[in-house]
Amino acid sequence: MSSTKKARTQPPYELLYWPGIPGRGEFIRLAFEATETPYTDTANESKAGINAVLSVIDAKSTGDSDGNPPAFAPPALRVSREGKDGKHLVLYQTPCILAYLGDQLGLAGDDEAEKHWVLSHTLTALDLNNEAHDTHHPIASQLYYEDQKEEALKKAKDFREARIPKFFGYFERVLKGNEEKGQGKYLVGDKLSYADTTVWHVLNGLKFAFPKELEAREKDYPLLFGTFYPSVQKHGRLEEYLASDRRKPYSMGIFRHYPELDRQ
Amino acid sequence: MSSTKKARTQPPYELLYWPGIPGRGEFIRLAFEATETPYTDTANESKAGINAVLSVIDAKSTGDSDGNPPAFAPPALRVSREGKDGKHLVLYQTPCILAYLGDQLGLAGDDEAEKHWVLSHTLTALDLNNEAHDTHHPIASQLYYEDQKEEALKKAKDFREARIPKFFGYFERVLKGNEEKGQGKYLVGDKLSYADTTVWHVLNGLKFAFPKELEAREKDYPLLFGTFYPSVQKHGRLEEYLASDRRKPYSMGIFRHYPELDRQ
Repeated sequence: MSSTKKARTQPPYELLYWPGIPGRGEFIRLAFEATETPYTDTANESKAGINAVLSVIDAKSTGDSDGNPPAFAPPALRVSREGKDGKHLVLYQTPCILAYLGDQLGLAGDDEAEKHWVLSHTLTALDLNNEAHDTHHPIASQLYYEDQKEEALKKAKDFREARIPKFFGYFERVLKGNEEKGQGKYLVGDKLSYADTTVWHVLNGLKFAFPKELEAREKDYPLLFGTFYPSVQKHGRLEEYLASDRRKPYSMGIFRHYPELDRQ
Repeated sequence: MSSTKKARTQPPYELLYWPGIPGRGEFIRLAFEATETPYTDTANESKAGINAVLSVIDAKSTGDSDGNPPAFAPPALRVSREGKDGKHLVLYQTPCILAYLGDQLGLAGDDEAEKHWVLSHTLTALDLNNEAHDTHHPIASQLYYEDQKEEALKKAKDFREARIPKFFGYFERVLKGNEEKGQGKYLVGDKLSYADTTVWHVLNGLKFAFPKELEAREKDYPLLFGTFYPSVQKHGRLEEYLASDRRKPYSMGIFRHYPELDRQ
C-alpha cells in the first residue's frame, strides 16, 4: 500500500483548522489529497481537536514550548520532529504552509524559477479568494452579512464586473504562455503544482457563490474552464477525494451563495 | 567599497514598480537598502522606465521571450541571468520576491524553520497593509475615495477598533516569544529579516495614515513601538536611506491621511 509506505517515510502532518468548512484549510487538504499523502485533519477527526486549533491562535500565547511562534489565524500546520532540535515544527499562513509542503510533496515545480512562479500564482489566487470573501463582508468580518448588505451589493457588483475578468484573464494568459509544456492543464511546467490546486479551488468556490456570473463568463476563458478546470478535478485521486465526506460543503465561510450578490 | 564588491558578486537586480510612491515596491526597496545591495529602481530612475513596468503587466501578455509568465500587478523583480538557461528571471507578488531576496541577501533567518516563520510574519504584515488600503477603498479600487466615503468611514472604524489591536497584539506577542534571542529588536532569531523591515514599513505607514489612533495605542505595545520600531529604523544604513530622496513620500497610495478616517 502506497499510503503505508508514505506513512513510514514522511513525517506526520497535522492540519490545524476550523472543522466542518473548506475555508483556507482546503488549500492545504488539496495538496495532501493530490499527492495521496497521509495527514491528520485534527479538528475534523475528533471533537477535542478544536482545542489544538484554539491553542495556536490563543490571544495570550507568545508561542509554544517547542519554540514556535503563535499563529495569527488558522490554518496552521504541525509537523512532528521537523522543527528546531528535532522538536515539533508549527507553520501558519496558507501560502507559507503551501510553500513548505510544495517542496516536501513535489508540488513546487522543477527548479528555482518554477518554484517561485508556483508561489506567485498561488498568492494571486489567494488574493482572489480574499476578494470573494469581502463581497459579503466589505465593512467588517465581525459583523453579520445582513448588517452590511447594502455595501455588499456594491462590492459584489465591482467584483463581478471588474475583478473576476481581470483575474480570469490573467490565469488564462498564464496557461496560454505555458501551453507548450502544460497543455492547458498546468499553470507552471509540465506537472501538477499547488498553484493548480489552489486556483482550481477558488474557481470551484466562485462557481458555487456566483453561479450565474460564472456560467456567463466561462466561455471567454477556454483554457481555464475548458481544459484546466476539468483536468485538475480529475487529477490522480482528487476526483475520489472531492466525492468523499472529507470534502466539506460550502456554507457560511469564504464562498457563500447569496443570489442577490450574483449576476441578475 | 563594499558596493563595488557586491556589484561584482551579486546579479543585477531590477525593481519594476510605479514611480513616485512607496507602495508595495517599498517592501522590496527596504530589503535592498537594509543590506546595502545595489539595485535599479527602473521607473524612478528614468522616464522611460515605466515602460518596463507596463510591459510585465500588459493585459495581452502571455509572458516574455525568456519564458517568464506575465505579472498580475507590480511589483516585479527582474534578475539578469538567473532564470532558465541563464536567461532573465522575472518574479512577481511581493511575498514571493521577498522570499527569493531573503535567501539571496541573508534576510531569511538561520534555518528552515526560521525561513518559514519570516515568510509567515511577512504575509501577516502584508494582510494588515491590504486592510489599511481597504479603509479608503472598501467598495472598489477603481472608484474615487469620495465615491465610497460613507463606506470608508464604517470600514475605518472597524479597522481602528478591531483590526489594529489584533495585529499589533499579535506582533507584540511574537516579539515577546522571541525576546531571549531577538531582544525585542527582531521578530525571528537574532538578526534582521525581511519580516522586520516589512512590519516596520506597515507601522510607519499607519503612523502617517492614522496618527491619532497610533498615538493613543503605541503605549500598549512596548516591545513593538518602544524597542522594535526605533531599532529597525536605525538598522545599518536604513536611517540614511529613509532620509534620502530614494524614500518616496506617502501620497495617494496605500497609506493616505484622511483626518475623518482617523480617531476623532
